[in-house]
Amino acid sequence: MGFLSDRSKYAYNPIEEEDRVAEQLAKKGARILQLNRGDPARYFPTPRYIIDAYVEALKEEKTTYSRAEGLLQLADAVSKRYKRMYGLSIGPDDIIATEGVSEALSFLNSALINPGESAVLFKPYYPQYIPTLTIEGGKPILEDYDERSNWNVHTESLESSLRSLKSSGRIRRVKYMMITNPNNPTGTVLDRKVLEQIVGLARDYGLMLISDEIYDEIIFSHARFTSVCEVARGQPYVILNGASKDLDSTGFRIGFAIIPGNDKKSKQLKQTLDNYALVRLSVNTPAQWAITEAINNTKEHRKHITMMVAEIERRAGFVMKRLAENPYFTTVKPHGAFYVFPRIDLKQLRFRNDNEFVDRLLREKDVQVVRGSAFGSPSHFRIVPLPPKEILGTAIDRINEFCRKNAK
Amino acid sequence: MGFLSDRSKYAYNPIEEEDRVAEQLAKKGARILQLNRGDPARYFPTPRYIIDAYVEALKEEKTTYSRAEGLLQLADAVSKRYKRMYGLSIGPDDIIATEGVSEALSFLNSALINPGESAVLFKPYYPQYIPTLTIEGGKPILEDYDERSNWNVHTESLESSLRSLKSSGRIRRVKYMMITNPNNPTGTVLDRKVLEQIVGLARDYGLMLISDEIYDEIIFSHARFTSVCEVARGQPYVILNGASKDLDSTGFRIGFAIIPGNDKKSKQLKQTLDNYALVRLSVNTPAQWAITEAINNTKEHRKHITMMVAEIERRAGFVMKRLAENPYFTTVKPHGAFYVFPRIDLKQLRFRNDNEFVDRLLREKDVQVVRGSAFGSPSHFRIVPLPPKEILGTAIDRINEFCRKNAK
Repeated sequence: MGFLSDRSKYAYNPIEEEDRVAEQLAKKGARILQLNRGDPARYFPTPRYIIDAYVEALKEEKTTYSRAEGLLQLADAVSKRYKRMYGLSIGPDDIIATEGVSEALSFLNSALINPGESAVLFKPYYPQYIPTLTIEGGKPILEDYDERSNWNVHTESLESSLRSLKSSGRIRRVKYMMITNPNNPTGTVLDRKVLEQIVGLARDYGLMLISDEIYDEIIFSHARFTSVCEVARGQPYVILNGASKDLDSTGFRIGFAIIPGNDKKSKQLKQTLDNYALVRLSVNTPAQWAITEAINNTKEHRKHITMMVAEIERRAGFVMKRLAENPYFTTVKPHGAFYVFPRIDLKQLRFRNDNEFVDRLLREKDVQVVRGSAFGSPSHFRIVPLPPKEILGTAIDRINEFCRKNAK
Repeated sequence: MGFLSDRSKYAYNPIEEEDRVAEQLAKKGARILQLNRGDPARYFPTPRYIIDAYVEALKEEKTTYSRAEGLLQLADAVSKRYKRMYGLSIGPDDIIATEGVSEALSFLNSALINPGESAVLFKPYYPQYIPTLTIEGGKPILEDYDERSNWNVHTESLESSLRSLKSSGRIRRVKYMMITNPNNPTGTVLDRKVLEQIVGLARDYGLMLISDEIYDEIIFSHARFTSVCEVARGQPYVILNGASKDLDSTGFRIGFAIIPGNDKKSKQLKQTLDNYALVRLSVNTPAQWAITEAINNTKEHRKHITMMVAEIERRAGFVMKRLAENPYFTTVKPHGAFYVFPRIDLKQLRFRNDNEFVDRLLREKDVQVVRGSAFGSPSHFRIVPLPPKEILGTAIDRINEFCRKNAK
């Protein structure tokens, strides 16, 4: 028997695994072009009105513990936002504030998963979904976002999988199905019809649906986002959202889980997440006040998000254009979020796999991206098109040259 | 099989269980005297220099994710503090920043405890220690702080328990022993000799020692605090500390775990806690900058902590004096932190137990305290002597009258 728990080996996040290498290279003088981190606040400063609200909360001595489930004022802001954007009616008991969506994922898995139970996830997945599930003894059942359908879910395949889980009796041990919409790492915004089908399948097969909608306002022109709350019909579901992306405040660590249902499962889960919140006392209080204002001040928010999304769309478009020059990549066009996820044609290149491609790209070309296998999809890599065009252009020049030099 | 996980039933924090009752009473117009929450920032505003540093970080756009294990600048401040205060030499790899000590407790238990394994805790315990252990399938082995020895540990009894754990082979399943020094809820500062003996026993029996020292600067005159790092000798141990109490910043949620050892267990644990940190990405970034300054600016800190501790000592002394008028209580004098923990002589009163005493005190007298059984020590209750004397005086008047009226 070891000193550490068995579960501790699952505590792992591949998103940051190359950071130590990059740090070492930087120490030796390299200027690493970082296209690896989905951190908008690095490139689009958190807007002034949010900073001002944060400063005001601090000056008003709002530095004590707050209500464990989150400030009522924040819950009120969130419920008004959902009414305004999606016509959803929720009250403060349906909302729990968390330390980023990260903490909500941990709470949900701890609250739902017994060892040996499982959850339906889709590849490519956001990497954090895996350790938060497996630490609790859960097993992912991996379905696919279908690259040929612009990374939408192939609902017939999903239905066939669910049917086989049901006929084998294994479905009784499946606690939830989780989607990411808009998607990280593909930038896909799920088609409304596809989403309706997913929601219908979750209902038909009795699965709680968890929809991570942290990018719900980062939608490119001509794309149309549908929230799960617009198509769900009296079934238990959870929406994950937060301040990091739409509100450009990654470092505040404010997330929230919304459980609108009044069915038995939803009620049990709400009560239990409240209990988890009580155990850890409170989320950062002045940041909650800042995000309350960030959500309520729709006029200032509109200005910032419009500017930011337009610019992200331009940068993502630029990346797509430049990647198209590279004959070894094929890339589905993203419609939201801030990720581009090219497929690498490894048959034509001298790399064993995406790991080697990404690791050598960092070491030889000072360009940091994330390997597709970190998302469960080998032969791909993820680019974050948030830096300014000059950096993106230089980085893709190097990526394209790197491929040419390593062509078979 | 239920919808929730089996472990979720352990997510519970009795510290806040009366808050909903108090909220209801307040809605009906009651003015509740709250002597229940260890939240210094409610009564001693977070000092200006810390607020200023927080504001500066925000204005300098330090709103992105930070290094998962915490800012290097914060780690540097913490390591200098430990050098200055205790002569301890630690580097950034020995320190991990967490979302309050709460998160450090969750990480430690998840990293160490397999289902069926256990930890040695002492009654009365800080309530959070129990759910963070039992959620992971752990079982507390409850030893006692000895009320007759001023709530110090009776080390002969402890040794006898450890000896019996060893002879039965059960000690192989004990992952750590945890102490709270200064103590919540008793306010005890462990005698150096007692601490030396505890440390010696942890070493002799091969147990990792976790010392929660969150109140290490809230020490009353004539008392002397010894950190575990001053008496440990080449054995694995963890110190938990943070910004909430000494730095009067409860709502910032900045804590840290320190693992100074270079032994194999310490190294494994450090690496694993880093991995847990990576999974949840980052702690609030501007708050980390504020606490970096809070620790480094020793001159301003000295001013505030001296004022605050002197005033807390006065208020605790006042509470002790007023409680002495009540013939149904006996109370060990606290030497630090901000808690007073009277024993109730239930034989002479018409209350079945401390639950009834505390619940009726709230409903009938509008005074909120916490029941001793929440800390594993029935027949006691916890008073937080942080409010101003007028409130403390009125509250104790009511408590004393309540006892007189309910005397047998």
